[in-house]
Amino acid sequence: MQNQKEVAIVGSGLVGSLLAIFLRKQGHKVTIFDRRPDVRLVEFSGRSINLAMSNRGWKALREAGIEDEIRELALPLDKRAMHVDDKPVYFQKYGEDGEAIYSISRGILNRKMIDLAEEAGAKFRFEEKIWDVDLPNAKLYTGESEKSVWKEYKFDLIFGADGAFSRTRHKMQRQSRFNYSQHFIDVGYKELTIPANADGSHKLDNASFHIWPRGNFMLIAMPNLDGSFTCTLFMPFEGDVSFESIQTEQQADQFFEQYFPDIKDEISNLKRDFFKNPTSAMVTIKCYPWSYFDKITLVGDSAHAIVPFYGQGMNAGFEDISVLNEKMNQHGDNWEIIFEEYQRERKPNTDAIAELSYRNFVEMSSKTADPSFLLRKKIEKKFAQKYPELWVPLYSRVTFSDKAYSDALDIGDYQRGIMDEVMKIPGIEETWDSEEVELKIKDLLNK
Amino acid sequence: MQNQKEVAIVGSGLVGSLLAIFLRKQGHKVTIFDRRPDVRLVEFSGRSINLAMSNRGWKALREAGIEDEIRELALPLDKRAMHVDDKPVYFQKYGEDGEAIYSISRGILNRKMIDLAEEAGAKFRFEEKIWDVDLPNAKLYTGESEKSVWKEYKFDLIFGADGAFSRTRHKMQRQSRFNYSQHFIDVGYKELTIPANADGSHKLDNASFHIWPRGNFMLIAMPNLDGSFTCTLFMPFEGDVSFESIQTEQQADQFFEQYFPDIKDEISNLKRDFFKNPTSAMVTIKCYPWSYFDKITLVGDSAHAIVPFYGQGMNAGFEDISVLNEKMNQHGDNWEIIFEEYQRERKPNTDAIAELSYRNFVEMSSKTADPSFLLRKKIEKKFAQKYPELWVPLYSRVTFSDKAYSDALDIGDYQRGIMDEVMKIPGIEETWDSEEVELKIKDLLNK
Repeated sequence: MQNQKEVAIVGSGLVGSLLAIFLRKQGHKVTIFDRRPDVRLVEFSGRSINLAMSNRGWKALREAGIEDEIRELALPLDKRAMHVDDKPVYFQKYGEDGEAIYSISRGILNRKMIDLAEEAGAKFRFEEKIWDVDLPNAKLYTGESEKSVWKEYKFDLIFGADGAFSRTRHKMQRQSRFNYSQHFIDVGYKELTIPANADGSHKLDNASFHIWPRGNFMLIAMPNLDGSFTCTLFMPFEGDVSFESIQTEQQADQFFEQYFPDIKDEISNLKRDFFKNPTSAMVTIKCYPWSYFDKITLVGDSAHAIVPFYGQGMNAGFEDISVLNEKMNQHGDNWEIIFEEYQRERKPNTDAIAELSYRNFVEMSSKTADPSFLLRKKIEKKFAQKYPELWVPLYSRVTFSDKAYSDALDIGDYQRGIMDEVMKIPGIEETWDSEEVELKIKDLLNK
Repeated sequence: MQNQKEVAIVGSGLVGSLLAIFLRKQGHKVTIFDRRPDVRLVEFSGRSINLAMSNRGWKALREAGIEDEIRELALPLDKRAMHVDDKPVYFQKYGEDGEAIYSISRGILNRKMIDLAEEAGAKFRFEEKIWDVDLPNAKLYTGESEKSVWKEYKFDLIFGADGAFSRTRHKMQRQSRFNYSQHFIDVGYKELTIPANADGSHKLDNASFHIWPRGNFMLIAMPNLDGSFTCTLFMPFEGDVSFESIQTEQQADQFFEQYFPDIKDEISNLKRDFFKNPTSAMVTIKCYPWSYFDKITLVGDSAHAIVPFYGQGMNAGFEDISVLNEKMNQHGDNWEIIFEEYQRERKPNTDAIAELSYRNFVEMSSKTADPSFLLRKKIEKKFAQKYPELWVPLYSRVTFSDKAYSDALDIGDYQRGIMDEVMKIPGIEETWDSEEVELKIKDLLNK
């Protein structure tokens, strides 16, 4: 255990709540500030994408001693269910037997995490907005408004867990030599719902991650415990088929009928949510340094917001906390070293998952209909299944392992180089299943 | 002329003052706000790099009708003077006969530009800091402090000319879908001075841009009208030879003696400034969009701050104003179109000069001592001199033309591809001067 510190966490989201549990275990006094009301007392916002918990997330929860409680909220999905135009639904297994991602409602998980952090002894101060942070003195200033009289709090340590639009980071950003970028993609998303059947059962297979890929837009659906599905429509903000182009009930009817015929019974629900729920933007945020001496550090989205196309946003944030905890165990009360090693170890990894997530967006947008791309995936998959010791697919490295994201990116690039060569084999469309192709891959792997 | 508008410009720097002159010519009422005092009434800050006015800058000044006044403040430099270790100084001409860049003191130029803007009828409000901008209503809020009572100003149009750390952009940055990045380099700079001789003459050749390249650091010197030189020391913040490593008088003596023996008589001056003047950071800033409907747009560094290694920061900012003025002349009172076309035309060009400036930093830092790099430059130069119609060097495209920066970047990359091939010729170190090499270049150009 470390010497007790007065610690503030800004933000009561998933990562902030998890961090609170770890800090309580280390013996610290923990206060969590959030500008929003207690999520346990309000309705959900209708702007959330269901979460896909995978290995890195589970590892952190296990270390926190709360894995079992969270498992009860989650549904395992061991495959994708592809809804491609007029074809019948077909399934793609994610990994080996027993490997699955876990669908969890963000709101339900957040409520539970706050309960658990509170049980662990963390204090929450909801509806108290941070207006300013005094970095060198670890002071927070809260109040009714930017111009009202502020309340001052003095802490030993402050953790910014306040998300992509972090006020804590915002303050750090005004320092010289602070690198920062925010890059929005031209695609937005909207939460939609498919309700449960009358008997509470799911309307679609509830052990699958459902995808309707449609070129430059797509719909996904993930099951909830109550029999419903949380769907997310990803679509360009502007253009031919876009959020901007669907303004009337009639346009919405036509859109859902034309592109999602196999769930057309759900149109009235989808349409209701389409006009009720907001359209949200997606952003990649990078910055460095994350820490200010032994006073302040950033965790989760405030340090590295990513686009959601690899399902790793929460997992990467939870892994931050795993690593922080490891550093606390290693370095005792030397917080400057803890923060320094934490940021140095995490930065290349969160850059890597940002890159992989963005690439998945490009891939899903433009390549899922490309026969050459699909063939490449088929060859890779066959080889990986036959020689699992020679070829772990990138998706599995990211999702079903806790090895560094940056290694996953590097090895993925290396594998892509090999597949580029393989795809150059004349007549590969016919010979893809042959021993020749297999030997070629082995040969390239030996180089 | 356009219909008269109430216009605010935030920032009384070079670009803001130039814009004021153009807007006055178009018949608008112009108020310029600056949080700093009037630069005409205060001493200079000691953190400035002399400016190198080149074609794009002169073009804008000519259009504003103030070229002649500014020429009087400038000294033409038609060559680099290279101070390389123990060798005697040697000279590299910048371009054709008559082509030169022009050394101007930033402070002196700024004072003059404010005079000229004031003569043109612009009103200045110095020491009045903008705390907030209401984007949709084009309102500015100023006051003593962030929490004091603010004064509200309503305008028709607001131009953010408030530099790399723009308050105007800062407000735009909080919008969704606003892309932004700030990237600092690990090298800082410091202003130093070599005073005039007793008779007012220059101590070094005053028609040269002086460079002391020293691997990962360098000193430059540019002449002023009063016989002095404004020098800039570029050096890593941390490391073996760095700003951090020079803390005592003795360390400074040793540094200047060891690395700059040909100006060792100046050590006491250099050293005085070294400890008096601040060490400043350098940043590349990119953002988009620059405009908010028909209300607000960004100009100069607030839209696109770049590192100074191509001498194009001010030139790019002045070119913004040229282009804005062109759009005003084309589109009359349609400010939404003016702002939209302005940003769309400028963005790829300012991205290009940002990239070229950063590359020049890398080149100057790591390649000026690389024999293969120097040979490549020599071959290129010889070919360009012999066949000026076939090969305009990148530097000349950027500096002595007003063609798009983005074309300069593209053509530069194309030329680099050709030179990569040329450098692969076996024994190029011996044959570089041969007809064979010349033919090879021509051959590659014909492909």
